[in-house]
Amino acid sequence: MTESKQDAAIQDRYDEAFQVCYGCGARHEHGLQLKSYVVGDRVVARFTPRPDQLGVPGVVYGGLIASLVDCHGIAAGAAHFPTDAAGHPPRCVTASLHVDFRRPTPLDGRPIELSAQVVEASERKAVVDVAVSVDGETTAEGRVVAVRLREAPPVN
Amino acid sequence: MTESKQDAAIQDRYDEAFQVCYGCGARHEHGLQLKSYVVGDRVVARFTPRPDQLGVPGVVYGGLIASLVDCHGIAAGAAHFPTDAAGHPPRCVTASLHVDFRRPTPLDGRPIELSAQVVEASERKAVVDVAVSVDGETTAEGRVVAVRLREAPPVN
Repeated sequence: MTESKQDAAIQDRYDEAFQVCYGCGARHEHGLQLKSYVVGDRVVARFTPRPDQLGVPGVVYGGLIASLVDCHGIAAGAAHFPTDAAGHPPRCVTASLHVDFRRPTPLDGRPIELSAQVVEASERKAVVDVAVSVDGETTAEGRVVAVRLREAPPVN
Repeated sequence: MTESKQDAAIQDRYDEAFQVCYGCGARHEHGLQLKSYVVGDRVVARFTPRPDQLGVPGVVYGGLIASLVDCHGIAAGAAHFPTDAAGHPPRCVTASLHVDFRRPTPLDGRPIELSAQVVEASERKAVVDVAVSVDGETTAEGRVVAVRLREAPPVN
């Protein structure tokens, strides 16, 4: 049981009331539904953009890259903290988001790969670096400062 | 003629081949279609999120905020540079994007207001600060480094 929970995406282990995010909520039917997984000391995800998610022709929309970095970094931050009594990772929110776009991310059907690592943490805050790549070539590098929410999830 | 062109949104004055961006392209039917306008020494825009563009309940999705800051900052950067012979502002791309989320941006039907100002510029690069607010209360502050594309737009 514990093992299968660990195998589930981080976002799918959030309290159900928090599974509503446009970027990564399993309960958001029309959202991006990003799924991030713990693999060793990293958190990884893959996302294949739709052809209409472009910025300039042939290039993935920068706002989408920023959205993926945000949700993925937040998931890595959440996975860093202890789960609650019910086994849910705490929900984190974004204090700051930074993305350096190193080169155009090609929009050609290949998946975007995200790899995150917590580089600094305190009791309530985690600083997470996120690398964005396509076929092993880094196209963007991000940093997310994730802050753990103290309060219980709202009734939804 | 010149006057009406100045009254048009910056994004609607890009070369048509560049009006395809998911965040601000007039030709992107299902995109966000952000429209940014020059008003004095500032560039302003308004955007009302849909109810499903949420992060946690009651709060606008951070990836959407980042997307708006990106397209709006890029528009302000483009408007800073001279237009081409046909009157099009140059298309800029994002070198880096930073957003500090100061407080939750409420998702309650009120529009998000964006106000941008170029704070530093060289021949090809503009650094743009973007304030995000709702009813005059700042909820996020962003910075975009915009780089002017040299090449002609691709045939689309």
